[in-house]
Amino acid sequence: MAAPVDPETGKAHIRLFVDQPLCAGGAVDLQAEPTHYLRNVMRRKVGDSLAVFNGADGEWSATIAALDRKSARLSLGACIRPQSRNPDIWLVFAPVKGARMDFIAQKATELGAGVLVPVLTHRTVVRKVNVPRLRANAVEAAEQCNCLVVPPVHEAVTLDRLLDDWDPARTLIHCDESGAAPPIQEALPGAPEGPAAILIGPEGGFDRAERDRLRRLPSALAVGLGPRIMRADTAALAALALWQAIRGDWR
Amino acid sequence: MAAPVDPETGKAHIRLFVDQPLCAGGAVDLQAEPTHYLRNVMRRKVGDSLAVFNGADGEWSATIAALDRKSARLSLGACIRPQSRNPDIWLVFAPVKGARMDFIAQKATELGAGVLVPVLTHRTVVRKVNVPRLRANAVEAAEQCNCLVVPPVHEAVTLDRLLDDWDPARTLIHCDESGAAPPIQEALPGAPEGPAAILIGPEGGFDRAERDRLRRLPSALAVGLGPRIMRADTAALAALALWQAIRGDWR
Repeated sequence: MAAPVDPETGKAHIRLFVDQPLCAGGAVDLQAEPTHYLRNVMRRKVGDSLAVFNGADGEWSATIAALDRKSARLSLGACIRPQSRNPDIWLVFAPVKGARMDFIAQKATELGAGVLVPVLTHRTVVRKVNVPRLRANAVEAAEQCNCLVVPPVHEAVTLDRLLDDWDPARTLIHCDESGAAPPIQEALPGAPEGPAAILIGPEGGFDRAERDRLRRLPSALAVGLGPRIMRADTAALAALALWQAIRGDWR
Repeated sequence: MAAPVDPETGKAHIRLFVDQPLCAGGAVDLQAEPTHYLRNVMRRKVGDSLAVFNGADGEWSATIAALDRKSARLSLGACIRPQSRNPDIWLVFAPVKGARMDFIAQKATELGAGVLVPVLTHRTVVRKVNVPRLRANAVEAAEQCNCLVVPPVHEAVTLDRLLDDWDPARTLIHCDESGAAPPIQEALPGAPEGPAAILIGPEGGFDRAERDRLRRLPSALAVGLGPRIMRADTAALAALALWQAIRGDWR
């Protein structure tokens, strides 16, 4: 939950993600956490207005109809924006530590990733993935950045398992640090149309068996991200920005 | 100071930035902070080896010749890598709060920015810029990511002052949230060759006077970064990645 300040008025504009259906004449019941935010953090009262979205039904104006210590009820007004969709691009990434993991979820949401998939490779050091925390980061980024879409976060899966079940129609854009792959801006324009995924390995890179398997996967496309080594979170966001510009909805 | 672990050996490889000239047969004297890191954090002893770089003379192997509680002396061995240079791309950014500011300095270093320039716009909320902290973040990113270049961090300057003195030969790529500018991937290929800068405004955007002034600047190039609103740090890194791919050294 977060409220960017309108620079013209200096007043905070609240956009709240709610996991409930939204429709004309409907209502939304809030539990303790968003109620605390509205009441104690933002000091809102019955009759105050805000905006709500759920990632499926667009964005709606809402009015606080009831506000207790642990729960609140919102009355829905008009639909402000119809639902938009992100391009069909997954971000498949090996988990990293702490704040940089939060950061990947936030930035990938701002950059319009469709789905976030934590993947455990042979050299992945961080093997426990806090999916609710990643999801909370994606929600917060969507609230702050006026996004209508919160990308779903999948449970962590091993790379071997992920590739066993890989949909051959989804191009797997695999960021290759070896220097042998064509630069991403040259490789992407020639990739097949349709669904895609960006795969970012762990900080130590993929091991030989994984590299061999990726090389044999018909839907894999190896790309390079320039002459410098980047941390995994930087590489993920750089690749996602390039994809949106060349194949996604920046066009 | 940071030491990525070699995934094959499991042993930390130390790369230390030092602000001293490096040459064959030379020596480097370390002060308290890097000495503490070598001795107490990394548990290194006299005779142990590491690598050092200074952003100007390439990367050198070094051996610990003396190690006391508060100082150390390194003997330089061979030059391991000749000095490389980053493309002439500045990142000019309105300061943001706390960790996201550190993050801009780290990620811009990984993405090969040539110079970092904090800029104070009319709507910039954060007006105090801790330049030594930004520089420390750039150094740490360079150490961790095998970079040879640490981009200089300029003192903060107002946008008005920066534009008063703007070199007309440097294209000022200005990220425009209005939706009216052409997408960055379409605008950049037609930009003049030569030095460039990416300008990212504050979270509230530029005000009308600033937008008018940017519009009148002959070397300014307005670009769009897609249909979603991004936080300033995300926009900075996305634009830098696109520039490196289209005009920089990813080609």
